[in-house]
Amino acid sequence: MEYRRIKDQDKDVNPATEDLESLRGKAILDGPAPYDKTKWKMKSMVTLALTFLTSSQAILIVWSKRAGRYEYSVTTANFLVEALKCALSLLALGRIWRTEGVTEDNRLSTTVDEVSVYPIPAALYLVKNLLQYYIFAYVDAPGYQILKNLNIISTGVLYRIILKKKLSEIQWAAFILLCAGCTTAQLNPSSDHVLQTPFVGWIMAIIMALLSGFAGVYTEAIIKKRPSRNINVQNFWLYVFGMAFNVVAIIIQDFDAVVNKGFFHGYSLITVLMIINHALSGIAVSMVMKYADNIVKVYSTSVAMLVTAVVSVFLFNFHLSLAFFLGSTVVSVSIYLHSIGKLQR
Amino acid sequence: MEYRRIKDQDKDVNPATEDLESLRGKAILDGPAPYDKTKWKMKSMVTLALTFLTSSQAILIVWSKRAGRYEYSVTTANFLVEALKCALSLLALGRIWRTEGVTEDNRLSTTVDEVSVYPIPAALYLVKNLLQYYIFAYVDAPGYQILKNLNIISTGVLYRIILKKKLSEIQWAAFILLCAGCTTAQLNPSSDHVLQTPFVGWIMAIIMALLSGFAGVYTEAIIKKRPSRNINVQNFWLYVFGMAFNVVAIIIQDFDAVVNKGFFHGYSLITVLMIINHALSGIAVSMVMKYADNIVKVYSTSVAMLVTAVVSVFLFNFHLSLAFFLGSTVVSVSIYLHSIGKLQR
Repeated sequence: MEYRRIKDQDKDVNPATEDLESLRGKAILDGPAPYDKTKWKMKSMVTLALTFLTSSQAILIVWSKRAGRYEYSVTTANFLVEALKCALSLLALGRIWRTEGVTEDNRLSTTVDEVSVYPIPAALYLVKNLLQYYIFAYVDAPGYQILKNLNIISTGVLYRIILKKKLSEIQWAAFILLCAGCTTAQLNPSSDHVLQTPFVGWIMAIIMALLSGFAGVYTEAIIKKRPSRNINVQNFWLYVFGMAFNVVAIIIQDFDAVVNKGFFHGYSLITVLMIINHALSGIAVSMVMKYADNIVKVYSTSVAMLVTAVVSVFLFNFHLSLAFFLGSTVVSVSIYLHSIGKLQR
Repeated sequence: MEYRRIKDQDKDVNPATEDLESLRGKAILDGPAPYDKTKWKMKSMVTLALTFLTSSQAILIVWSKRAGRYEYSVTTANFLVEALKCALSLLALGRIWRTEGVTEDNRLSTTVDEVSVYPIPAALYLVKNLLQYYIFAYVDAPGYQILKNLNIISTGVLYRIILKKKLSEIQWAAFILLCAGCTTAQLNPSSDHVLQTPFVGWIMAIIMALLSGFAGVYTEAIIKKRPSRNINVQNFWLYVFGMAFNVVAIIIQDFDAVVNKGFFHGYSLITVLMIINHALSGIAVSMVMKYADNIVKVYSTSVAMLVTAVVSVFLFNFHLSLAFFLGSTVVSVSIYLHSIGKLQR
């Protein structure tokens, strides 16, 4: 009875955003249909891939820091990440065209109506990345790591507002716990400095969290708007605008360095590995948006943060703090509550 | 339907332990009966009293530490706490006898069958207090404060096993969060030392948590076994044995000091205030056992810990750490989950 009531409520929801969440709910109650099983398998696979790629990303960052800083231009690397994602999407499309032929859903050509919203996430990320340079006047790097956990809350709130998808009370509680748990796990003796962040710093951190959350949720809205459209075509158009906006970033931030020292100055093996990793995890994020949602993405990257810390113990002789154990416990309980919250709502 | 299923399960439960939890569940579904309302009011009042007394207890301890250490014998103070509780119970009984007359439920005389279990909690506390002297060979005082949070888990587990009362899955999750949240709130830069506690120290901490949890749960079982018996009579017998076991503790630990320097050596105004406070909070604990349960007691003392920290900011210019905010958030979510877990099970 409880379930039927909730299903009725779901009817108010924008049909474009009513995706496999509800299918999965059905699968659990009625037993999985073969179609649901495939989708569920896809969802699990892309989530695992994102977790794996995000953890290895963080490990590459630690590795590159320990190997000494490379003075490459971050904006050129970001441009190459977008270009590589674009190339990989085209490659995947080429294979699909050969096996399935060109159809309405997988053709590359598009309409102004479809493509007009694609620049928005890239533009939001550009603004966020530019802001990132200014926030360090108010917060140090470890403090910024702590403040970045505000992304979790902003994503949840914007997911609710923009995609109009309901989270149950338990799932909201789980989301607050995820934010508190991730922050706890990252605590170190100097973390209390964050509390001295000036007001402007807090405002900037909140704006950046909103921009990042909005970009993520908007990407999901774009991708889910046309459920039958091939994900590689959707990715292609997202990444084309990603490339374009990164050209703008190169011109604003690193024009002189690129002209004087060359586009690839300061690149090393680790830089190349990081670009490949960023490209693959970028594609994994798109896949998670298509087959799951932003909430799964947030959980996946949070778990990746914990996995990174544990792996770093073995790779770099890191020590795990009591705060890490407590934070991990809270994150684990949060994941559990999120899953039972889904069934009980 | 869900509720009916759970009610059927409850029938297996020892009737002596089936108390106002179920009455409260009924009250929420059928609307509160006047009888339930009184009990609910009583439950809230004793819980608030316990929270208030526990916070002021901790504040008195901080005050006494700042005023310099008083070299009084802790065992004599513990004895006086029991004696004062005994006197207060008799006083309350005297008033009841005058207004209601002596009845079967409020007469002081008892049977061997009734009284035989009353020494057990006092004996358990004695063993725990004696162990406390030895654990400091393995853990320092701030580390012991952290390890004491194991009490939360041990109380939950023993509550389930001994009183055979079910907690819902959400309530278990809430309980783990309460433990993690309280520990997080108490974190300080030196807390990581706890992880280096030797194995013997861990075992002792776990045994002490079990002893303390068992004493609490057993007290609840004794008090709830005879629901109609006047709480002041039950308290009287508990405290008589408390006095007796504290005489044993004085002889074991402080015999020489008491003989040479006198029973009241080193007492000050703060010592007297602390004894009064301990006595009143001891009575509040008994009341919580009678009208609520050990779970309410654990939540109440955890909230008291947070209240103490906030009050200390104003009284002693303490600074609140980021860990405190995160821990408080987790504890708040835990309380919320515990309350919705009660309704949903």
